Amino acid sequence: MEKNLQNELKKEAAIRAAEFVENDTVVGLGTGSTVKFLVDELGRKVREENLSFTGVTTSKRTASQAESLGIKIVSLDSIPRIDLTIDGADQVDNNFNGIKGGGAALLWEKIVATNSKKNIWIVDQSKLVDRIGSFPLPVEVIPFGALHVLNKFEELNLNPALRLTENGKKVMTDSQNYIIDLHLNQIIDPAKLSNQLINTVGVVEHGLFLNVVDKVVVGKKGQPLILENPDK
Amino acid sequence: MEKNLQNELKKEAAIRAAEFVENDTVVGLGTGSTVKFLVDELGRKVREENLSFTGVTTSKRTASQAESLGIKIVSLDSIPRIDLTIDGADQVDNNFNGIKGGGAALLWEKIVATNSKKNIWIVDQSKLVDRIGSFPLPVEVIPFGALHVLNKFEELNLNPALRLTENGKKVMTDSQNYIIDLHLNQIIDPAKLSNQLINTVGVVEHGLFLNVVDKVVVGKKGQPLILENPDK
Repeated sequence: MEKNLQNELKKEAAIRAAEFVENDTVVGLGTGSTVKFLVDELGRKVREENLSFTGVTTSKRTASQAESLGIKIVSLDSIPRIDLTIDGADQVDNNFNGIKGGGAALLWEKIVATNSKKNIWIVDQSKLVDRIGSFPLPVEVIPFGALHVLNKFEELNLNPALRLTENGKKVMTDSQNYIIDLHLNQIIDPAKLSNQLINTVGVVEHGLFLNVVDKVVVGKKGQPLILENPDK
Repeated sequence: MEKNLQNELKKEAAIRAAEFVENDTVVGLGTGSTVKFLVDELGRKVREENLSFTGVTTSKRTASQAESLGIKIVSLDSIPRIDLTIDGADQVDNNFNGIKGGGAALLWEKIVATNSKKNIWIVDQSKLVDRIGSFPLPVEVIPFGALHVLNKFEELNLNPALRLTENGKKVMTDSQNYIIDLHLNQIIDPAKLSNQLINTVGVVEHGLFLNVVDKVVVGKKGQPLILENPDK
């Protein structure tokens, strides 16, 4: 998809999803390029429409952006529960299984998501797929012994690659761990893979988000589409 | 058990286990008071008996002690495989299920153990129990959102307590995480609990070591007892 159009669709989804944020609630704010548009729009609503809510963020990046726009951000441990979290996703299939973590924030994103009453994902239409997996699946691993985890994934034919920065350094997450991306092409059984990954010693968390999302707002030519998860 | 006697039995088990270390092998060295005796003995053998091996440690503490005694220590990621790991345990039952992590090193201990061809535990006889669980089970958790994990464990009646230092600060592991101790009294189904814990978002690892150990060297009045795991 052409980049300008894609950004337009991301922005439309973000603006539509911002309407779900209600006054006096605690809102989880995700991470990534689509969420950036969301935070911009929420900042505008705070300034221009007297919207009042408390934010919890899934990364230091989002916290900085939100606070610069006048949104009140608190720590996850200072509140009992999040009412609604809005986040992006890298791929979503028809069964509402998602891959997240392209921006390396999957661990905090999953912690925030599992502590939220409701979860909305905002995506452009290119993220909707029949089967997830063509987007590399990120796995967050402890640096101590990380190469052994990489080798295990290789033996299992999971096509792993340690994520590096443009300068060739290992990417470090906000929790000071590494990211291994699995280049799987397609994931036949997400639940089975999830179980296998989480039981690998050295793995902290992975980017498969199963049975998490309630609603997906899809930026689409014309107007945003809202998909409701029937299992939630 | 009287403290001096207990130390004597720990030391006997450690000295007996040191005999399993062969020349030109890679040896994983655990953490804790019993392992301290082991490292002392291995240092003596290096100096007095020309024992030559390469060590990989499960904590910064053990690395310091070993290097001060002239034992060569390398990083886990610099070697393909560990031949034998010798570590302590806080409790072991008749089925060779163990609880480890009283010293807060469970994550690195489990990573080293799962990358070892063979595992030996060294314990004094007070650690052998019919059913594990009277020793608190340590769970290593990500600081981000840790209080929510604590609350979940409370709801599940797992009697959790965040581990604090003597000065009342949160204990930080070598991987900069917190430890939550579960005061369970007894663990009826270790495999089920292991599965429940590892699938809790925010949990990095826990101190249940199931199907890990090959041999347990027990310091006992008289002489050390060696238990062989029939399932390994």
